[in-house]
Amino acid sequence: MTKDAASKDTAEKAGGNPAHALLCIREPFPASRKIYIEGHMTGVRVPFREIALTPGIADDGGVVENGSFRVYDTSGPCTDPAAAIDLSAGLAPVRAEWIRQRGGIDEIPQSESQCRRGRLADSSLADIRFRSAVKVLRACPGCRVTQMRYARQGIVTAEMEYAAIRENAGADPCHPAESGRITPEFVRDEVARGRAIIPANINHPELEPMVIGRNFLTKINANIGNSPLASSVSEEVEKMIWAVRWGADTVMDLSTGANIHETREWIIRNSPVPIGTVPIYQALEKAGGVPADLTWEIFRDTLIEQAEQGADYFTIHAGVLLDHIALTQRRLAGIVSRGGAVMARWCRAHNRENFLYTHWRDICEIMAAYDIAISIGDGLRPGCIADANDEAQFAELRAQGDLTRIAWEHDVQIMNEGPGHIPMHLIKENMDKQLEWCGEAPFYTLGPLTTDIAPGYDHITSAIGGAMIGMYGCALLCYVTPKEHLGLPDKEDVKAGVIACKIAAHAADLAKGLPGAMARDNAISRARREFRWEDQFNLSLAPDTARALHDAALPGDEAKRARYCSMCGPGFCAMRLNSAS
Amino acid sequence: MTKDAASKDTAEKAGGNPAHALLCIREPFPASRKIYIEGHMTGVRVPFREIALTPGIADDGGVVENGSFRVYDTSGPCTDPAAAIDLSAGLAPVRAEWIRQRGGIDEIPQSESQCRRGRLADSSLADIRFRSAVKVLRACPGCRVTQMRYARQGIVTAEMEYAAIRENAGADPCHPAESGRITPEFVRDEVARGRAIIPANINHPELEPMVIGRNFLTKINANIGNSPLASSVSEEVEKMIWAVRWGADTVMDLSTGANIHETREWIIRNSPVPIGTVPIYQALEKAGGVPADLTWEIFRDTLIEQAEQGADYFTIHAGVLLDHIALTQRRLAGIVSRGGAVMARWCRAHNRENFLYTHWRDICEIMAAYDIAISIGDGLRPGCIADANDEAQFAELRAQGDLTRIAWEHDVQIMNEGPGHIPMHLIKENMDKQLEWCGEAPFYTLGPLTTDIAPGYDHITSAIGGAMIGMYGCALLCYVTPKEHLGLPDKEDVKAGVIACKIAAHAADLAKGLPGAMARDNAISRARREFRWEDQFNLSLAPDTARALHDAALPGDEAKRARYCSMCGPGFCAMRLNSAS
Repeated sequence: MTKDAASKDTAEKAGGNPAHALLCIREPFPASRKIYIEGHMTGVRVPFREIALTPGIADDGGVVENGSFRVYDTSGPCTDPAAAIDLSAGLAPVRAEWIRQRGGIDEIPQSESQCRRGRLADSSLADIRFRSAVKVLRACPGCRVTQMRYARQGIVTAEMEYAAIRENAGADPCHPAESGRITPEFVRDEVARGRAIIPANINHPELEPMVIGRNFLTKINANIGNSPLASSVSEEVEKMIWAVRWGADTVMDLSTGANIHETREWIIRNSPVPIGTVPIYQALEKAGGVPADLTWEIFRDTLIEQAEQGADYFTIHAGVLLDHIALTQRRLAGIVSRGGAVMARWCRAHNRENFLYTHWRDICEIMAAYDIAISIGDGLRPGCIADANDEAQFAELRAQGDLTRIAWEHDVQIMNEGPGHIPMHLIKENMDKQLEWCGEAPFYTLGPLTTDIAPGYDHITSAIGGAMIGMYGCALLCYVTPKEHLGLPDKEDVKAGVIACKIAAHAADLAKGLPGAMARDNAISRARREFRWEDQFNLSLAPDTARALHDAALPGDEAKRARYCSMCGPGFCAMRLNSAS
Repeated sequence: MTKDAASKDTAEKAGGNPAHALLCIREPFPASRKIYIEGHMTGVRVPFREIALTPGIADDGGVVENGSFRVYDTSGPCTDPAAAIDLSAGLAPVRAEWIRQRGGIDEIPQSESQCRRGRLADSSLADIRFRSAVKVLRACPGCRVTQMRYARQGIVTAEMEYAAIRENAGADPCHPAESGRITPEFVRDEVARGRAIIPANINHPELEPMVIGRNFLTKINANIGNSPLASSVSEEVEKMIWAVRWGADTVMDLSTGANIHETREWIIRNSPVPIGTVPIYQALEKAGGVPADLTWEIFRDTLIEQAEQGADYFTIHAGVLLDHIALTQRRLAGIVSRGGAVMARWCRAHNRENFLYTHWRDICEIMAAYDIAISIGDGLRPGCIADANDEAQFAELRAQGDLTRIAWEHDVQIMNEGPGHIPMHLIKENMDKQLEWCGEAPFYTLGPLTTDIAPGYDHITSAIGGAMIGMYGCALLCYVTPKEHLGLPDKEDVKAGVIACKIAAHAADLAKGLPGAMARDNAISRARREFRWEDQFNLSLAPDTARALHDAALPGDEAKRARYCSMCGPGFCAMRLNSAS
């Protein structure tokens, strides 16, 4: 799509900018209200969703109040009716004061990225440009402003307290004991030793902080992003808000089409969750789409461009080494990572070592100046079952381990990306090797997909693998949508992908025995036993879907009060027979 | 629904009987043809689906023929354009001659079931009755006609050869070695030692035999059945054919509504797969819906009624013992199995031991006379995560073990039903205990569902658990549809449930390392690498879905020849970058 076409498309769909496209997404969840729990530190107000439960009926016929149930809430201010949302102004900068008070930063007078200066000066982009009033920050020379740096200095940041409070949302209200609760100090300790990260660019003050690590709730990521063939700015912003509505803890903007700079700005300014990107995609566009023409200078300028915009983490394929490429020759599917394929071509074209590897310390210094976490890409992940756990894959994972340790020398927060297509019996080996070789840095996997034969259903093939690797300790699961291998996902695909991945993450949390993880299961099961249909819908991951499926079978209000469903009917309901027996 | 309403409904939808409702289901799969492989034994013609692959392009620009790929085919004659299908006549009795030749059977002059005699004599049922010409068979007095009996006598039956040939379908054509192939003798040996079953009632001659056991492909079951609140005869027959089209290896008819006798006859006469039932459901209807009024005589008559119709396996909740019921009192969800709840009520009402348990040897004798396999029900399976692996559940499993050994004394084929709702870390214990306590009889589980919080998506929560328990050795996975906990599934739910369960079963087969299991994955991955889009669709579990999702993103014929998709576009396709580099 050309710039003009994208602009026209935006104008048509959104009346000039994406600000008006999203009204539907402001709808609160049924029977839910947004609440905020304040921390001890100034300005820490952590959002949760509180679901009001309907009363039950006691054995003596009296009414039993069931109170409410509190859930972790990734959806941001959009689902808060009290919040004034103006997408063209962006979200409120809840972190701005924390960042300012910690010091060690400068406001930069103008962008240090040549590309960004050019985009900002291009008057033809006025229609689609986000008019940001946010001042761009960078660490003072010689300073490192990363959460890891603070953690290692023994400082509990507001972000750490915020993340800790979030983690305890699911704690069973029946379990008043503080034991097993996540404390801010525990978060600090995990971040200090590299076992957890809090992706939080100092230029993304709108962020509601969260923590990724295997001793916390398993998190999920949703990929969005336009491609040259499809979708517009407003669609991508809408997909981001849609993804966090359903539970995405982070969102990656994988745009490769026109106006990716402007699209990204709209997304970050309106995102309550960490935004990840893959800078090599944009760098390649700057190199005219020719991998061999990529240079460190182009890439570095892109890092700074996106760092100033507020991207919270970068996927960087620095572990794809020249020597590894030959190992992929025997593969059935070869190299299936976009970034991996680009870097492999660059290495071969020049017969030189990957410049992301050779410039790794330079990259780390830039990351430390904005507190951008690095997600070391798995450019050689297997793209089919036959290629799982092969030499190429594990050679890269070893290189990731080396890069992880170097990054930690720079106080840079790191996670490692993992596969891919892996049959179930080979999943654990991935987790074990990652823990061993990468010093327990958080693992971030795409699935894994446990078979290749179900295009159209890869949200399911990957939910199986994701749940398993989550149980073994994977910290962040990247969603896979039903469109994987077939096309760019639309809104419904995004929802299907998020819910499937959320199921995997929650199943993993149950299996890990996280304190409180079972509380929501118990609440919904109690509602089920007591035929509180409304509560069953409202407590579920997708209340609208649950309600619609129930309505499809037995529509109407009467059915919501029935002590049976259309599955078995009143005479054969086990729950009824059982409670009456 | 009343009998009249059901009849009217049938008439409206199907022009008087279900025979005309199913034309749409005769459509062959794209690029596929039905083939039959003949065995050494007379009349053994095993169906497969052969998918024609499109040619590829060699490095020198020449055309490379890719031949075809053969897949296991559960869909029966409906997908064979050469087969004459008349639902009101039923399928051809492919097994009739094998059964006759083995001897030891009598044709019975009239039904030995009082209920069946009554239904057959009721002229008001003429409109919906299947007019069967099939003679009803029963073993001669003192004879046992079970596959297990023959196996123990060292006899390889036609059913065993048939099942063996089916198992090898997926063997990679690149692997000509016979090593690792399933032989008829291996099937016999597994059946003899009770580690596998071939459900095949002598009164279901239309059956295309298959084998269930952990050393074979993991099988899946789809539940259908009307409830008093929904669905008609024609709908249920249609669901059965629909379910086997998508890959159901067995189908359970769980009808509880009107005309269940007639519905079952239509289903069995047209079913190429084993049909399972839960006789206690119909027995309860005969007892006026009052569990306490159930008697051994009512139940026995129901067993014979359904045995004469040709049901291939019965779920019988004989392991729910009087002493176990108290163990469910502390549960969050109590008893969630319909059969379990009914028997628990009966036991309590009479303060007597479960009559299914006390009459177990009588039941086994009946089973041996028709070769009906028993699936010992898990009436106390956990209905929520909190109740998983509790005392009640395992007490019943121990009782199942005792019942299994007794059944084997009678040469009756047995499998054990298992849970239910189980978090991932507790799944393996279920499999381990079942193998130990039940002498390695095939395990048959419902899921397990790995969390309670996703109504509307329980096909996914159960695919996770099903894949895992399949990997550990579960032989038969019962599907769960998106409607689980919400209502009776419709056709689309059945497809969604079957595909999700098939994914779980296949992922398990890959993890078990079954010979040839990876062949289909490799074929589709090769097609993916070579941008053979048509082959990717046609090789997938649901070609129509894969094609529709691709079309939604990039419609038209041109896109089917493109060396990229709308996910990344031509400039960013890793497969392209990779193959060109």
